[in-house]
Amino acid sequence: MAKQNIYPIDGIRMSAVSAGIKKPGKVDVVLIEICAGASVAGVYTQNAFCAAPVVIARRHNEQNIEQQGLRYFLINTGNANAGTGESGIENALSCCAALGRDAGVDTTSVLPFSTGVIGEPLPVEKIIKVLPQALDNLSEASWSEAARGIMTTDTVPKSYSRQISIAGRKICISGISKGAGMIKPNMATMLGFIFTDLQIDRKSLHELNQAAANRSFNRITVDGDTSTNDCCMLTASGKSGLVYGELDETGQEAFGQALQEVYDELAQAIIRDGEGASKFVTVEVSQGQDENECLQIAYTIAESPLVKTALFASDPNWGRILAAVGRAGIHELDVSKIAIYLDDVCIVQNGGRSPTYTEAMGQAVMDKAEFTISIQLGRGQASAFTWTCDLSYDYVRINAEYRS
Amino acid sequence: MAKQNIYPIDGIRMSAVSAGIKKPGKVDVVLIEICAGASVAGVYTQNAFCAAPVVIARRHNEQNIEQQGLRYFLINTGNANAGTGESGIENALSCCAALGRDAGVDTTSVLPFSTGVIGEPLPVEKIIKVLPQALDNLSEASWSEAARGIMTTDTVPKSYSRQISIAGRKICISGISKGAGMIKPNMATMLGFIFTDLQIDRKSLHELNQAAANRSFNRITVDGDTSTNDCCMLTASGKSGLVYGELDETGQEAFGQALQEVYDELAQAIIRDGEGASKFVTVEVSQGQDENECLQIAYTIAESPLVKTALFASDPNWGRILAAVGRAGIHELDVSKIAIYLDDVCIVQNGGRSPTYTEAMGQAVMDKAEFTISIQLGRGQASAFTWTCDLSYDYVRINAEYRS
Repeated sequence: MAKQNIYPIDGIRMSAVSAGIKKPGKVDVVLIEICAGASVAGVYTQNAFCAAPVVIARRHNEQNIEQQGLRYFLINTGNANAGTGESGIENALSCCAALGRDAGVDTTSVLPFSTGVIGEPLPVEKIIKVLPQALDNLSEASWSEAARGIMTTDTVPKSYSRQISIAGRKICISGISKGAGMIKPNMATMLGFIFTDLQIDRKSLHELNQAAANRSFNRITVDGDTSTNDCCMLTASGKSGLVYGELDETGQEAFGQALQEVYDELAQAIIRDGEGASKFVTVEVSQGQDENECLQIAYTIAESPLVKTALFASDPNWGRILAAVGRAGIHELDVSKIAIYLDDVCIVQNGGRSPTYTEAMGQAVMDKAEFTISIQLGRGQASAFTWTCDLSYDYVRINAEYRS
Repeated sequence: MAKQNIYPIDGIRMSAVSAGIKKPGKVDVVLIEICAGASVAGVYTQNAFCAAPVVIARRHNEQNIEQQGLRYFLINTGNANAGTGESGIENALSCCAALGRDAGVDTTSVLPFSTGVIGEPLPVEKIIKVLPQALDNLSEASWSEAARGIMTTDTVPKSYSRQISIAGRKICISGISKGAGMIKPNMATMLGFIFTDLQIDRKSLHELNQAAANRSFNRITVDGDTSTNDCCMLTASGKSGLVYGELDETGQEAFGQALQEVYDELAQAIIRDGEGASKFVTVEVSQGQDENECLQIAYTIAESPLVKTALFASDPNWGRILAAVGRAGIHELDVSKIAIYLDDVCIVQNGGRSPTYTEAMGQAVMDKAEFTISIQLGRGQASAFTWTCDLSYDYVRINAEYRS
């Protein structure tokens, strides 16, 4: 995404410090402070081996509905605190409690987030030791540092910001995200933190977060691997003075569109930074009986190692796309009705090679860094899409060397 | 597999010739002649984009139940004749008809098989031109040439043979197979041809083929991509004079076990020759509620790019195995009951890291060329397994360069 100013959000401050979890000197702890009275909505990983911090973040968020509210996101990289059993829960709580003591808030006012290696004990002491420094450094202007501080195998920090006018006032939406591998969010993303200064009630906030995440973070796949630590949090500080529930339909729609744009940009940034990725590909499936079967085909194509290596090689070997459609497990699929396009080039018509297709036409599309694979099923009105990338030597290198 | 003598099967002859579909001089057409009165059972790909030769092979096999029987398998590599629509069907039939004329049998006595690039028109003339030569060359001793002749991205030919004594007589089972990528057979394999000189009625033959394929070819995955052209054919020439239906239980069991051994060896050979593979890994899931959920978890692990790259790096990064179990979509999975082993090293107990586990123990297993990942679910009696390999640079290279 283009280099862009990030609008600060009134009521939100952050800092990024080095606790020595990763290599010495690397930033690995990010603290985000939320003003009292803000509301927070979260969607979380559906992985059954949900990490300890996700369990605690969800629990604290639910406990705080009627209380003073959530005040801090405490995020560490370098260690996922996942697959760590009961001691992982205790470790996550210890960090929350220590921050609560230092900041003068309840333990339950802190939501913990972790990302990194699975199965290692969380280095609690290292984290607790840097909390005073993290609190001292809090600033409204540290968005870039925070975006950089939550990176793991990411090669670029991911942030996006929009300012819109609603009812004559400026409303800001700003977010940061991280993720490059183990990417197939399922009702969540790797880590996404989006903030606005609009005031939004919890119910609307949750609905807005779900809807926006569903058609952005939940539509991306790098390798089909759903992380144990995915979370996407939407926070409304309310400091603008404008209240979502009091906006007219036009105002609500304008906000929803701007919000979606921020989610889309942050989610696409994860695919553009996909481990080893050199291509950004949209897979669109239309004319399906329902959205589920369209998604099923879209993911089968997007996660096929054979399709992904062909994308890497810029090889219009469309037989691999066709084979992926065929093995997606769709009931009574009539292949004679299927059409496949690369951008606007028709490759397959009525289940066979289009008479107008030439290899040169396919090659011209495949040579691009961004394009769309479209499948028309000819059996209904539903459609769905996913964003994905290619499978390159570098994906293998990055994941073979991850811990070495 | 170890270099091994292949027992000829009385009633079966074969030849391998070069038709110029692949590079000039490369063997790309294999002809197998079956004696009159033999019986043939097939299992075929479940891919909806089932290739034209598979459609015809299945049709001719069904049409021949009451007729003179099947007499020839005509196999070409270099072109899959898949995604070719109606003209693909006509092309497959033209080859069968030409062979029928040359050999003096019905068109329906020929089963066609193709493997190679998807979506290109089958070079019918090239194939028809070499049929007289292929007929002239038929020999009982050409098993090695045939095994080599059906290779595509395979690096080694795949064959296996067993001789057993039943009721005082020698019975032989010999088979050849091919496959290295686009491997996730679904009721079939890439290409497998197994022969015996036992006489077996069609119903028993079909059951034996299904059962043996199900726990061998249907348990292997390289990349999760099911081919459009998978077929596994079991042929009984009957020339030994022994009749399967007249054997006692011990004899039938002995035959079934030897048959399974041949299928196992041929299926494992495909994984050992998996594109870029350096490891042979068995994934075993036990204590499940039913076989399906065990298989679902086994495949999720075996197809996870993150697990596969860790296998390639010999990295005991077991968090990736745990994350794959967690995202396999099993209903109400209680992670606190799960145990994970590498061979006999317990890594995860009660959903968290085993207190006895050390990285050195995991590393010792991961350094081996062959080992087993075992998952115990603690929720039932069912179990299932799959055989798989790692994901290496060479997988990407092979598939990125496939057509270039």
